[in-house]
Parts: sequence; structure tokens; C-alpha cells
Amino acid sequence: MIQSVDRAIRVLTALQGARRMSLSELAERLELPPPTVHGIVRTLVAHGMVVQDRSSSRYQLGPAVLRLGNVYLDTLELRSRSMAWAEELGRRTGFAVRVGVLMAEDVVIIHHEPRPDGSRQMPEVGIVIPANASALGKAMLAFLPDETDVLLAGPPLRSMTGATVADPDEFRRQLADVRKTGLAFECDEAVLGESCVAGAVFDSTGLAVGAVAVVVPTTEWPVSDAVTEAVRTTARTISRELGATRWPG
Amino acid sequence: MIQSVDRAIRVLTALQGARRMSLSELAERLELPPPTVHGIVRTLVAHGMVVQDRSSSRYQLGPAVLRLGNVYLDTLELRSRSMAWAEELGRRTGFAVRVGVLMAEDVVIIHHEPRPDGSRQMPEVGIVIPANASALGKAMLAFLPDETDVLLAGPPLRSMTGATVADPDEFRRQLADVRKTGLAFECDEAVLGESCVAGAVFDSTGLAVGAVAVVVPTTEWPVSDAVTEAVRTTARTISRELGATRWPG
Repeated sequence: MIQSVDRAIRVLTALQGARRMSLSELAERLELPPPTVHGIVRTLVAHGMVVQDRSSSRYQLGPAVLRLGNVYLDTLELRSRSMAWAEELGRRTGFAVRVGVLMAEDVVIIHHEPRPDGSRQMPEVGIVIPANASALGKAMLAFLPDETDVLLAGPPLRSMTGATVADPDEFRRQLADVRKTGLAFECDEAVLGESCVAGAVFDSTGLAVGAVAVVVPTTEWPVSDAVTEAVRTTARTISRELGATRWPG
Repeated sequence: MIQSVDRAIRVLTALQGARRMSLSELAERLELPPPTVHGIVRTLVAHGMVVQDRSSSRYQLGPAVLRLGNVYLDTLELRSRSMAWAEELGRRTGFAVRVGVLMAEDVVIIHHEPRPDGSRQMPEVGIVIPANASALGKAMLAFLPDETDVLLAGPPLRSMTGATVADPDEFRRQLADVRKTGLAFECDEAVLGESCVAGAVFDSTGLAVGAVAVVVPTTEWPVSDAVTEAVRTTARTISRELGATRWPG
């Protein structure tokens, strides 16, 4: 671990939470002297990772992080291999489709297919959802025992709604169920009114590198077997495209 | 400038260009000993900014950069203030609309409204276009003399097509025209077959913080006065929303 690199990423993370911060606020957050933080921030500003607002002198994230995020998406084989199948899944089921990857205790959405009803929907790429509260997260964690241990050894599971599973034993039981069928479920656990069915996507080494889900209004829950099967087929097909030789269930 | 932070960003930039690199390739690119680069890369990996591919051991950008990019977009007042007006501009003109900001010698697209004909179009948020080859870039640079000087003092202007203006004097003449009318034009200069009309967006301090453009197939170029006026009105309206008190032209 290089200390100043670690600190620079902590500056970016702080700006991710608070959006606009003065130098003294950043210094307080990082528990470092302002001149130390200033050196780091100036380096980030020089590369466009952070910008300073002219009128308030506060710092916020800069356009270079957007470009990095875009290149990340372009690099991701999971995404390029998923896009056509996600569209097909949306068309077949009539629901919105999300593809996500695991990042520590969160799922990051890397592809989003809006519900194919022509309505205007907010883009979701880049948003994060606590892994324990989402079908996408459970679908992956069921096949990632080390990541599950790390998650459960950390702070208590985050409760997003009254329906979020916060008990570690209950969570492990759910993951065992996912391993049997290959499918994970979430009903009002991340967002009230929103439910999901997800299946993990595996790469050629058998690693769960992502997951795909349909997003179902809870008023239309539970979904038909046809929808569940469509999610399973999609997850299996994308896995096969990534070189996976087996799929659970 | 903190040296190791600078190096960490150079690692991210290298991965942006080559997408997947081994440790020795990164070390060669940065002209540093592999153990030095390894320490930096490990720190980036620990934060999810970089991930290592299991089978090839190569490094690529990680999901944390996507999340940063998404937060950047959410932070950006220019984007939130532009969205409704960009949609309106698209509806009125029938063309795709882009909103961009300047990042060194490039324009980064921060909002994209697809052409409202119902066709499936690639999302463009996060892509970069050389500022000198784009109407968005010219619209901003016309009101950013320092940035223009830096751009023209650097390496020769990048030529994307035979139509890109590469001559600095001609480029300065074009910027002078932009200052008169407030509008910038690009015909086949970044991408063959694609042309744009752009207007700069100013904030409350009078700084050109962005630009908005319609994207026109060159087969439909030049556009009518109604389209040009719609771009002008949109750029002026977004500027006013950001607190600008004047708009050129």
C-alpha cells in the first residue's frame, strides 16, 4: 500500500460522499494536516480528476473520472457480451434489465436496459446497491464464499428497507438456496416497490464475475415461471459466451 | 505534485489507452522499476480502481472508476440544469443533442439525448472528442483564451479527418467568428458524415463551463436558421439557469 496513493483515493471517496468540500473539510475527513491534503488535491486537479469551483473554492470530482468510467465499461467483456442478451430478456419479459458486478460490499450496475414500454427512465449505469439487499448481489455472493465471509465479518449488513435481510444466518441460508437453483430473489429489499430475479454470470475459470436481473414492480410480483426461466437462460447464455462450461441448478 | 499520486494517475491513464496491461508493460510505459509500479497497482486494486484478470494476470480498470464517474455526473450542476432543455432541443430540431465540458485538449460528453426517431443509438456519455475538431470545443475555447493558448502551444492540433482544422491561425480565426455569433460549427471534422452546431454555456461568473450542440448527419447539412436559433436559445437558457447574466452574439 502506497500511503499517498491511498490518501488520494480517500480524497476521491470523500468527494463521492459529500460532492463538494473545502480543503479544511477534506483535511478533517482524512484526519491529515491541510498542507498534506493540499498537495494531494493539487495533483488530482492537475489531471482533471478533481476540479475546484471558481466561486466557492470547493473541490468536486472532475471530468477525468467520467472518462475512466467510460473506458472501464468499454473494457468489460461482461458488458459487451451481455448487451444483446439483456435487450432480448427485456423484450421477452417486458421488464427492465440490470447487469451488475460486485465491488466490495456493493453491486455496481454496468448495464441497464430500460423497461421496453417507451417510458422515460433514469439511466442506472454506475449506481451502487448494497450487495446483501439485492438479488444481483446474492446471485454472485452465493458462488463467492470468500467475499461472503469478508462481508459478514464486517459491519452489520446494511438495512435499506424493513424487508432487507440483516441477519447473517438468514443471509447464508438464502445463499444456500441460490446455489441450488442458480437464481436469487429480492422483494422490496433495496427499494420499496421494486423486486428482482437474478442469475449469476460465470467466466471461463468458473468465477461469478457478474449477474443479470429483471426488475419487477412489486405490484406485479411474484413473476411467472416463464420470467424466471428467461432469467436463467439469459444468465447461462452470457456465461457460455464468456467461456463458462457449467452453470448451477 | 505528489509523485506517487501522479504515478497512480499515470497507471490509470495507461490502462485507459491499452485496456489490459501486464505489470512489466505498465512498468515500461511509466519508465519505472516493476516493484515501484507494483506497489502503486496494489493500492489501486485494494480500492477497486483497478482489477487483475484471474487467468491472464493482466490489469484493467475496475468498477470503482465507474462509480466515481457516475457521482461526477450527479454532482454536475451543468448536467442537471441541461437535461430538460437538451430534450426540448432534440424534440424541436429532430436531432441528437450533446452537452460537453472541456478537459485539457478534449471535450468530454456529459449528457447525450439520442435523436428522437426511436432508433437504437449508442450512449455517448463519457466519450471524448478532440476540442479542436468539435463544435462543442470551439464554442467553449472561443471564450477561454488561456486554454486556447495552452492548446495551441502544445503538440500540433490533432487531425481526425481531412476536414479538421489543423492550422493554428485558421483555428484562431474560427474562434473569433464564434465570439461574434456565440455559435460554433463543425462539418465532418471529428467524424465523417457528422456535423454539429454548438453554443457555449456560461456560469454565474461568466466562465464558459460547457457547451450544447445538435448532431446533424452531414447529408442534412447545412441546417435551417430555425435549428441554429434553437441551439442559441438553448445555450442561453441553460446559461441563465446557471446564473449567467449575459450571453454573446
